[in-house]
Amino acid sequence: MTLTPEAPHSLHTERLTTVGTHLRAALDGAYAAERAVARATFPTEGMLRDPSWDVEQSRAWTLQRLKDLEEHGFGHAGVPDGADAVQDPLTAVVTFETLAHADLSVTIKSGVQFGLFGGAVTNLGTAWHHAEFLPKITDLSLLGGFAMTELGHGSDVASVETTITYLPDSDEYEVHSPTPSATKAYIGNAASHGTMAAVFGQLIVAGQRHGVHTILVPIRDDAGADLPGITTGDQGHKGGLLGVDNGTISFDHVRVPRRMLLDRYGGVTADGVYESTIDNPNRRFFTMLGTLVRGRVCVGGGAGIAARRGLSIAVRHALKRRQFPASGRPDGVLLMDYLQHQRRLLPRVARSYALGFAQNELIAALVKVQGGEPSTEDEQRELETRAAGMKSITTWFANETLQEAREACGGAGYLSENQLTEIRRDVDIFATFEGDNTVLMQLVTKALLTDYRKEWSDLDKSGVVQATARVAGEQMAEATSVNLVLDRLASAVRRRPEETTLVDRRWHALMFEDRARHSLESLARRMRAASKDKGDQFESFNAMGPHVQYVAHAHMERLVLQAFIDAIDECPDGETKQVLERTCSLYALDSIHADRAWFMEHNRISSGRSKALEGQIDALCRELRPHALSLVEGLGIPKDWLGAAIVDES
Amino acid sequence: MTLTPEAPHSLHTERLTTVGTHLRAALDGAYAAERAVARATFPTEGMLRDPSWDVEQSRAWTLQRLKDLEEHGFGHAGVPDGADAVQDPLTAVVTFETLAHADLSVTIKSGVQFGLFGGAVTNLGTAWHHAEFLPKITDLSLLGGFAMTELGHGSDVASVETTITYLPDSDEYEVHSPTPSATKAYIGNAASHGTMAAVFGQLIVAGQRHGVHTILVPIRDDAGADLPGITTGDQGHKGGLLGVDNGTISFDHVRVPRRMLLDRYGGVTADGVYESTIDNPNRRFFTMLGTLVRGRVCVGGGAGIAARRGLSIAVRHALKRRQFPASGRPDGVLLMDYLQHQRRLLPRVARSYALGFAQNELIAALVKVQGGEPSTEDEQRELETRAAGMKSITTWFANETLQEAREACGGAGYLSENQLTEIRRDVDIFATFEGDNTVLMQLVTKALLTDYRKEWSDLDKSGVVQATARVAGEQMAEATSVNLVLDRLASAVRRRPEETTLVDRRWHALMFEDRARHSLESLARRMRAASKDKGDQFESFNAMGPHVQYVAHAHMERLVLQAFIDAIDECPDGETKQVLERTCSLYALDSIHADRAWFMEHNRISSGRSKALEGQIDALCRELRPHALSLVEGLGIPKDWLGAAIVDES
Repeated sequence: MTLTPEAPHSLHTERLTTVGTHLRAALDGAYAAERAVARATFPTEGMLRDPSWDVEQSRAWTLQRLKDLEEHGFGHAGVPDGADAVQDPLTAVVTFETLAHADLSVTIKSGVQFGLFGGAVTNLGTAWHHAEFLPKITDLSLLGGFAMTELGHGSDVASVETTITYLPDSDEYEVHSPTPSATKAYIGNAASHGTMAAVFGQLIVAGQRHGVHTILVPIRDDAGADLPGITTGDQGHKGGLLGVDNGTISFDHVRVPRRMLLDRYGGVTADGVYESTIDNPNRRFFTMLGTLVRGRVCVGGGAGIAARRGLSIAVRHALKRRQFPASGRPDGVLLMDYLQHQRRLLPRVARSYALGFAQNELIAALVKVQGGEPSTEDEQRELETRAAGMKSITTWFANETLQEAREACGGAGYLSENQLTEIRRDVDIFATFEGDNTVLMQLVTKALLTDYRKEWSDLDKSGVVQATARVAGEQMAEATSVNLVLDRLASAVRRRPEETTLVDRRWHALMFEDRARHSLESLARRMRAASKDKGDQFESFNAMGPHVQYVAHAHMERLVLQAFIDAIDECPDGETKQVLERTCSLYALDSIHADRAWFMEHNRISSGRSKALEGQIDALCRELRPHALSLVEGLGIPKDWLGAAIVDES
Repeated sequence: MTLTPEAPHSLHTERLTTVGTHLRAALDGAYAAERAVARATFPTEGMLRDPSWDVEQSRAWTLQRLKDLEEHGFGHAGVPDGADAVQDPLTAVVTFETLAHADLSVTIKSGVQFGLFGGAVTNLGTAWHHAEFLPKITDLSLLGGFAMTELGHGSDVASVETTITYLPDSDEYEVHSPTPSATKAYIGNAASHGTMAAVFGQLIVAGQRHGVHTILVPIRDDAGADLPGITTGDQGHKGGLLGVDNGTISFDHVRVPRRMLLDRYGGVTADGVYESTIDNPNRRFFTMLGTLVRGRVCVGGGAGIAARRGLSIAVRHALKRRQFPASGRPDGVLLMDYLQHQRRLLPRVARSYALGFAQNELIAALVKVQGGEPSTEDEQRELETRAAGMKSITTWFANETLQEAREACGGAGYLSENQLTEIRRDVDIFATFEGDNTVLMQLVTKALLTDYRKEWSDLDKSGVVQATARVAGEQMAEATSVNLVLDRLASAVRRRPEETTLVDRRWHALMFEDRARHSLESLARRMRAASKDKGDQFESFNAMGPHVQYVAHAHMERLVLQAFIDAIDECPDGETKQVLERTCSLYALDSIHADRAWFMEHNRISSGRSKALEGQIDALCRELRPHALSLVEGLGIPKDWLGAAIVDES
């Protein structure tokens, strides 16, 4: 379905400040209309899970809530429900993000069912699979798991041990777990509700391995009993997401008909021969995994919403709560008036905006690639890299921010009725699933290095490269920069940094550009040296582990700043634009401040300028303090959705 | 009782590496004997709570476990059980730390009952209170709450609104909550099990206020019903510590006999007149609060143990788990062999040692002050400052470390059966209770500034102060330094830092000393300037909030390094000493690296030296990698106490 403003289920009416209204519009960005409709139609009754429920109750409630949402047209929104339906990635992501305003178990179970299980059928299957399964998946009569991860192979999907062996005599596949470590693990819907799984395994045809493929395997009968050859396990109580029934699955020579293989990119023909549209097995593998990109866009977006919920609660609390009388403040000082408290919360609010603008750009890239229009392979790769990086930095940010918000609310923050600990528990695992953050950051840097080498080699052929590698590197980086706005700003200020002020956007751009370029360039140099190293190759590259993480971090910060700058340009309201300018400066200076050691080490800033950063951050916090409420309103979480007693009591 | 090695309840036999044995002895330090006995006698059957239990079950189990521990002689150990018994702070702290090896709800409920409620009676009461209540408190027939915090006044104890008014006609006190914000909140034992509370309120005698005092008030009858005038509330499900029944209490003109006031430091005589052994009301207030110091020592110690449990699980997992094949490692690389993974865990292991050594010194200071021997007022103040700082830095460290450990174990880390999320949930609030960390760090700096001003003024009188404040500050700091070892080391290297290597302990000492001195000195200068400021006094001081936090942090780091250096000297084994030297260097360089921007900004290190830090940290991680198991053994958590499935599976 498409969300429409007609007959909203729970029309949301919230009185916002003028600046708050404009800030929300800015952060909703190009998708303001879709998001407004989603907010207006989202069923809010019983949107939060009771934290005191046990695992059984939580799972039952979560499944029921998913069914209710589906009945209200808010279930599989954006996901195709048959062979003729097309996917609508924009609606899918906006729906996921809206779900993240409420119980995250529901969000994730929805993601498992529609995004992962449904997504595997949609993206890896063909017309027969679509017609046969998508209607049942989207109306929730068929619940399924996405059985990729194995006990022995968390992030290393290429090494999964499960086998999918073609049996020519019966024209079937045999799915088998050859070892205990081949057991599928952490699979949502596997512990209890799922009756089918999309299983990832090594395809073997006539003794030959063709790499990882995916096959649909029924795992339970209607009564909930494991089917013959299937052993499921319940992974029970977890750190959070109690409503999601994660479990294990292992296969003992389980046979399924040939057509159950999701064979869009490769499978066995009626003649019993393996055929694939992609000859290179490595490229085939990454093409199949690449279809997972929407999940990462969703998870990052959901984590961003979780962080905004936490900040909304903590800032609204700090605008009411007084502690310790002071001169001229006999009733106590508002928490929000303590500079230390501002420093704990406002830079995080600023970063929430920054990440939100970058998420909008990521959605645009996803829509471009998966929305039905033609797209290039470069655009697909760029989308995957960006999604991996955004997922990592946003989920880490959400975890840290919710903890800061909890502590900023003191003992009240620890009561489940104030939601912070509950959101924190649920969002914890976002840093691991859909790709471990550390591994995803490695992927980002790997892609950057590939681009770098390619451009380097092109430049080299054309004779542009100068005598020294140092200079060549700089020029190359400029020539290949995708961030033209940052680049233009940076160029304008490059020759006179000390004359500029700390809130000069051109100076921020220069710093972000330099950090990303120089760290990548020096890593590339170390990589070249390591590849010539005669010693233990693993150790040569292993030594660069922290550098690899840094490069990805610097690259993502650059993308995020770029997105923020673009968004400010779009804002029509003068006062709001000023607030956004300051918020952007706070984000930029907070990022530079956190890395100021790097900037000094690389002679990008003097020690005097570095010392001045903190004073400027303090000044921005003071300037934004009067807009604290508007800034929180702009984050877009309606106040009465927060469900936090300390906020409701006002 | 005193723990004795006779008839151990669950004699623990664990086979350790030689280095592991020596490391454990080093970390156990001066209290190795007491800790060995505690380990050998701790009842380990059913030591961990089932995470799937609900609030009711968790509370019932926690109370029963507390009773079982008491029966095994492990309950109120160290706490006096009658008027003639003396307190034994060493046994009390060692017992608390041992309890923290298991379920933290039990640890905290024990802390509420024996440490806070029992501690109030012991320290604020007199012989009658001791004889009347301590036997029942220690045998658990009288469960009580420590009713200090109010809804409206979390950290601001001086502002509590509850009144304790003397009624001369009936020779009683009337305890009353004049407003909703006067409601006592977050009180352990208040929601369900407690029948009495030690209530903090403003004492009023004949219309005159005498500041905060504490009175014992019965709150429930034996059937569990609120007594007349008492309204208790249940704060229900929390972020963790489900076994502790935190609740609210409010009082509606509740009368109790005069003798119920804990009047050691002040109360009403039989003649109806207020008398106190401490004339200055401010000093009286802080003397009463000062008796809480043992609780802070315990909480910091418990948090340190929680962090060690997390690191023990994550490192032991990383020593078994392989991911991604690499050249020469066809079965995959051990997680512990990835430099990035070493960097995530080993500096935290090093800091665990550092904090453990500092905790030992803190215990020694507590024993000196509260162990019955004479102690000076300076020693008491120094103990309070150190306890406040250690509580803050250790509880923050525990929270961050458990999250890092969770992520380092991936999806397995999220399963409750692997304990990490459970410990994390429980230890979260350690950052807030027994004093909010941010507020406690302010107390540390306040004490440092007081010392600084006092010494400055003494020096000034004696004519030592030089012409410029800058030089005077340096000299003063040296003259008043309590850290003679650091000072001696630092002096030896002061004139030639660039010639020294990064692992030269003298250079570490110099950096830690300089950071602590200079940041304090510059804050003192800003404070002097602010006090002369004609504008809004609150804002003048408010602007220094982050600087105040930094000074406390720098001071605590200095104390911690000092403790580490002292402990190395005590180690008798050569190889272990080498491991400790490297571990100390890793801690020191990690601390300097985290603050390297500060050191560059203040011209303490060059940008070249700063860049070299990371390489040296990497080298130390590689050097310590072969000792990873020994290091974890040394942390002192017996492997079979971890209760983590991923560790047991080996």
